[in-house]
Amino acid sequence: MIQKLIQNIQKTDAPIVVGLDPMLSYIPEHIRKKAFEEFGETLSGAAEAVWQYNKAIVDAVYDLIPAVKPQIAMYEQFGIAGMTAFQKTIDYCKEKGLVVIGDVKRGDIGSTSAAYAAGHLGRVQIGSKSYAAFDEDFSTVNPYLGSDGVKPFVDVCREEKKGIFVLVKTSNPSSGEFQDRLIDGKPLYEHVGEKVAQWGADCMEGEYSLVGAVVGATYPEEGMRLRKIMPNAYILVPGYGAQGGKGADLAHFFNKDGLGAIISSSRGIIAAYRQEQYSRFGELNFADASREAVLDMREDIRQALAARK
Amino acid sequence: MIQKLIQNIQKTDAPIVVGLDPMLSYIPEHIRKKAFEEFGETLSGAAEAVWQYNKAIVDAVYDLIPAVKPQIAMYEQFGIAGMTAFQKTIDYCKEKGLVVIGDVKRGDIGSTSAAYAAGHLGRVQIGSKSYAAFDEDFSTVNPYLGSDGVKPFVDVCREEKKGIFVLVKTSNPSSGEFQDRLIDGKPLYEHVGEKVAQWGADCMEGEYSLVGAVVGATYPEEGMRLRKIMPNAYILVPGYGAQGGKGADLAHFFNKDGLGAIISSSRGIIAAYRQEQYSRFGELNFADASREAVLDMREDIRQALAARK
Repeated sequence: MIQKLIQNIQKTDAPIVVGLDPMLSYIPEHIRKKAFEEFGETLSGAAEAVWQYNKAIVDAVYDLIPAVKPQIAMYEQFGIAGMTAFQKTIDYCKEKGLVVIGDVKRGDIGSTSAAYAAGHLGRVQIGSKSYAAFDEDFSTVNPYLGSDGVKPFVDVCREEKKGIFVLVKTSNPSSGEFQDRLIDGKPLYEHVGEKVAQWGADCMEGEYSLVGAVVGATYPEEGMRLRKIMPNAYILVPGYGAQGGKGADLAHFFNKDGLGAIISSSRGIIAAYRQEQYSRFGELNFADASREAVLDMREDIRQALAARK
Repeated sequence: MIQKLIQNIQKTDAPIVVGLDPMLSYIPEHIRKKAFEEFGETLSGAAEAVWQYNKAIVDAVYDLIPAVKPQIAMYEQFGIAGMTAFQKTIDYCKEKGLVVIGDVKRGDIGSTSAAYAAGHLGRVQIGSKSYAAFDEDFSTVNPYLGSDGVKPFVDVCREEKKGIFVLVKTSNPSSGEFQDRLIDGKPLYEHVGEKVAQWGADCMEGEYSLVGAVVGATYPEEGMRLRKIMPNAYILVPGYGAQGGKGADLAHFFNKDGLGAIISSSRGIIAAYRQEQYSRFGELNFADASREAVLDMREDIRQALAARK
């Protein structure tokens, strides 16, 4: 699956992923109104609004991007109806040829992690049949529980040719509270990065492993060090745009082959119409604003990669 | 909610929680057969088997126990149908007067953690209305992202009088890989334990905080130290029974008031009928075997608490 991601990146010449993290407050009034008219101001109404919003954005940008990253929390908050919208979003994006990174940040002990891995990336056996429940292409995984918690995901990656991104250095302001603490002279995130390299060593597809890492755009120096520690890991880089990361900060997340990183933007793309810069599109044309924001982000990153030579 | 948990514990004189972590392989043939006849060997069939199994066990033990802990991964693996069984299990256990600890181990950055907290413990606003989606009483939370990731849960706890248990030292064999690493002379889990005490300081209910901790039964010495670091935190202790923890190891997880800890057993209770010790009940009477296993566990812990004086 990492090769599929790389092919998509090369085809679009855009190492970017659009985070489908819809807050109800981002969704234009006309979409919310229609959904609430049909389903009421209910969990189902909210889920319908989310789905219609996602669909319009995906329709507007799918030819420009290699991948999407739905953040499951934004669906899970609406209960079963929300999870159904998550599922529909995954299915629709895959139909459009996009790689789907489920931003689920799961992680637990052995058999429990195995159940998460089966549900999100693999298949569950039910009597004589087997089913893929959510069937994402990649999932994000939390490493706090150690190898026991991550290995079941790695096993499923190997069997199903899927992938994971393990949280190493997250983009949020307090990520350093534990992740930066020094252990034997090195921050915890470097130790986690070393494990990522180990976990991924026996599930390579070409130059890259099915086991990647999450490193926040907001921490470019840490990204540079982690790039060296995990040379074969694809790095998923959230925090571009709304969280403060800029293209120029991101060049060192990439390898010299121009590969090895994929930059994520959520609010900056899906709620572009709410920014001054794209306000000319107006709320009704929110999806066109998203398309323009993708084009701008692509250009910003192309320039950053060109400038590092 | 911590006071409700304490009341339930005192009423039953049993500081124990039954983990509802149903693997399909645990579920007796007659239940699986009936579910598959009705829904086929499908995700819905599996979810129905899980729900019927849970219901029978809860009916057999609810008067003996204060709380249950459904492990969401075991439901999530069956997709939307599985999540519906998770929801039904929560609702049913609450009807029975049980406190429900959602073992969801969620955790993300700010607004995303807020969405998880709203969906699992709080309410989401949809237009002029608000809804509680999964509406657990407590959730487990992963601390790897630091305060940003945990605080949104703490805020919801304070508003809704719900609670969380933050992963501090997990029960699995490789939990030490990161959690035991020394930072300024103390293992990471102690640093996390100190944060738990801080996060919980301003949401007390009586002697105990709405912010508790997870510390594995398999690490009794670590439990003893953490007990002192977080004197007002309730400790949720998984790993009893099948994972190797014994009552005698657990006495030091409790405070002198006999409170402060709740011991979890999953497989040891729900799949008791598969153990030599309870095989006399037979597969058809699996729920009676679970009841007997709860009585034995209660006695084991009572003796351990009595012996420490």
